[in-house]
Amino acid sequence: MSQGRLLYAQSGGVTAVINATASAVITAARAAGVKVYAARNGIIGALREDLIDTSREPIAAIRALAHTPGGAFGSCRFKLKTIEADRARYERLIEVFAAHDIRWFLYNGGNDSADTANKVSQVAREFGYPLTCIGVPKTVDNDLAVTDCCPGFGSAAKYTAVSLREAALDVASMAESSTKVFVLEVMGRHAGWLAAAAGLAGQGADEAPHIILFPEVPFDEAKFLARVDDTVRRVGWCVVAVSEGLRGADGRFLADAGTVDSFGHTQLGGVGPAIAQLVKAKLGYKQHWAVPDYLQRSARHIASKTDLDHALAVGEAAVKLALAGQNAVMPAIVRTSNAPYRWKIEPAPLAKIANHEKKLPKNFICKDGYGITEAARRYLEPLIRGEAPPPYGKDGLPAYVTLKNAAVEKKLPAYDIADG
Amino acid sequence: MSQGRLLYAQSGGVTAVINATASAVITAARAAGVKVYAARNGIIGALREDLIDTSREPIAAIRALAHTPGGAFGSCRFKLKTIEADRARYERLIEVFAAHDIRWFLYNGGNDSADTANKVSQVAREFGYPLTCIGVPKTVDNDLAVTDCCPGFGSAAKYTAVSLREAALDVASMAESSTKVFVLEVMGRHAGWLAAAAGLAGQGADEAPHIILFPEVPFDEAKFLARVDDTVRRVGWCVVAVSEGLRGADGRFLADAGTVDSFGHTQLGGVGPAIAQLVKAKLGYKQHWAVPDYLQRSARHIASKTDLDHALAVGEAAVKLALAGQNAVMPAIVRTSNAPYRWKIEPAPLAKIANHEKKLPKNFICKDGYGITEAARRYLEPLIRGEAPPPYGKDGLPAYVTLKNAAVEKKLPAYDIADG
Repeated sequence: MSQGRLLYAQSGGVTAVINATASAVITAARAAGVKVYAARNGIIGALREDLIDTSREPIAAIRALAHTPGGAFGSCRFKLKTIEADRARYERLIEVFAAHDIRWFLYNGGNDSADTANKVSQVAREFGYPLTCIGVPKTVDNDLAVTDCCPGFGSAAKYTAVSLREAALDVASMAESSTKVFVLEVMGRHAGWLAAAAGLAGQGADEAPHIILFPEVPFDEAKFLARVDDTVRRVGWCVVAVSEGLRGADGRFLADAGTVDSFGHTQLGGVGPAIAQLVKAKLGYKQHWAVPDYLQRSARHIASKTDLDHALAVGEAAVKLALAGQNAVMPAIVRTSNAPYRWKIEPAPLAKIANHEKKLPKNFICKDGYGITEAARRYLEPLIRGEAPPPYGKDGLPAYVTLKNAAVEKKLPAYDIADG
Repeated sequence: MSQGRLLYAQSGGVTAVINATASAVITAARAAGVKVYAARNGIIGALREDLIDTSREPIAAIRALAHTPGGAFGSCRFKLKTIEADRARYERLIEVFAAHDIRWFLYNGGNDSADTANKVSQVAREFGYPLTCIGVPKTVDNDLAVTDCCPGFGSAAKYTAVSLREAALDVASMAESSTKVFVLEVMGRHAGWLAAAAGLAGQGADEAPHIILFPEVPFDEAKFLARVDDTVRRVGWCVVAVSEGLRGADGRFLADAGTVDSFGHTQLGGVGPAIAQLVKAKLGYKQHWAVPDYLQRSARHIASKTDLDHALAVGEAAVKLALAGQNAVMPAIVRTSNAPYRWKIEPAPLAKIANHEKKLPKNFICKDGYGITEAARRYLEPLIRGEAPPPYGKDGLPAYVTLKNAAVEKKLPAYDIADG
């Protein structure tokens, strides 16, 4: 008789290091003699009984996952509703788990995923099905409660700070006779964590970024334009980092694209060009803008070593917690010291994480609303520390791995995820 | 009596490695006992007599230039017209050069700069002023004639290929329930060299980029949309690389912003979002787009080692040619072998480079117009080979140098560059 299997699934927007967590999960489970299945495309694969047998992958491929961005088993944007509203889907999950003797379920995602893992654990208990559910943190948005930071954020933060510093050197070179204002749009729908990370690129009022536009600070057009103009006159050029989630005084997103994803979030994009064109129209300065979008969260080539260490640690800890039967928890990163930077992993109840959103603390934003404070630097700086480049091939490209993702034989009738 | 000085100036859009060329120029000149002045903001500084004494910089700073992006002395977009039309400015240049005993003038830029260097040499000869003018190649656009490739291109090409490969892994993870089409806009006003470089990210029809939109191939909306749809149905997602210089069948830029820079070039931007929104509107697929803009040409952190070697070599060769009195030439990169990749530097007459534009060869683009050929791969692949990361500080950021840029005392009356 089987001793049970562990099911690992990825959820939400992927990161440069979510596969490092996957690598650590599989490695730790293998060491404990536990077979790992992965759900193809997150919870969707679990519902469809579309499971991947990771034991078919050689150890070299599992190791290479640690330096490969994206989500190796596929991720998803598919949110389960309350147990009452989505009972058929929760019951289907338990049915699939039972059919494949899944005893441990590790869901690697953000606050929506923590909520799903928590609800699955409740339904399993209700059915008397022996299941340990673990949420494994991941999000470039860094907005999970309880944990000091989220794996994926540090690498996106490093990408943002490095890119802004590099682009600022470019603008400084060109400003005398060409581009005077450069706008970099950064991710972060509701919280300005990545916008704040852009602030690490420079020190003081005259180093780029000269202005950060946070989603937490309502956009004041006149005050912003005055600050841009003042900066160009004093410094010669001006670099602006703007959060995709920037809102006006009326609370509306400045770049509301009008489309909504399956989580009900408004899909954003385009505030960078909008701000740049505002500067051009009102002040007449030549401008350039950049929107890195997915490049920002998939840039494994410039990953933070600290972030990679976190991603590996939460994966390993998740397996330990699971095998120890600690149900409905998430391995959280606890900071024990700023200088030197020290941290440890401790379990936190999923109920405290599910559906909460950690905002940027007020004392991280300067009084004028356009920069970061020393408190923000103390928090952010350790998270982008250290380099962890991937190996490169002779072709000059990172040697990222593609898994075989061999399917586990199905045992149940087909299921349409549109059913519910 | 002074033995004469060498004036170095940077021009046009800067690159990840133009400062490496500057580093090599200064190092080689110092080794030959020649003092190097740099013009602040390119030819503008030469006209204003705004010169920088690089001998005031410690050797460590000059060495650090080799890993610092941007233009350390400032660049410019300022084109001199014909000698007839701009005689007063050319004469002013000779006056400034004579006042500071400039015997060698090295202008580091693209085809406009090669033209300027060539014309300055003609005016000097006319005045009987002993001056050796050298053009030093640089441009991410890779569109200089004669030279096999241009320093700056290889690093931007590597950035493009690596970023596209990373973003494609992200899209592949999300496609089942979220983004199905991703569009990356790449630089290249008139020639699709960087668009072609994106093609290095994958092999075959099913690897990203699935579609490259070249400026050389008139955009056919119906054919493009059919290809996107076919790719999404077959592969599950579709990644498009689009050149900023994409044109319609009428020859107009698809994203004509309507503004014109001081070289008379139309300032482009926004074709990426335009293509993505077209896909959304016509096919209904969820899309994301990225426009790296300056990040692409300043990404020293992912520079190509081959490109860096070229940038250093043309700097060193430029000094040797100058001191040998080889007037009105440019050190060109000559490829002597593809496999193994071998190259050497040879002087080429500026007259053959000035104002010419090297197009992407027709046999580099697939018959269907949407991909690159094996000939293109053979040419491009060596140029992105090898890594040359900058040193990083304890703060997790690259340790880029900022020079003191101490001004040389002026000897002439003030001059307004608007005069001509």
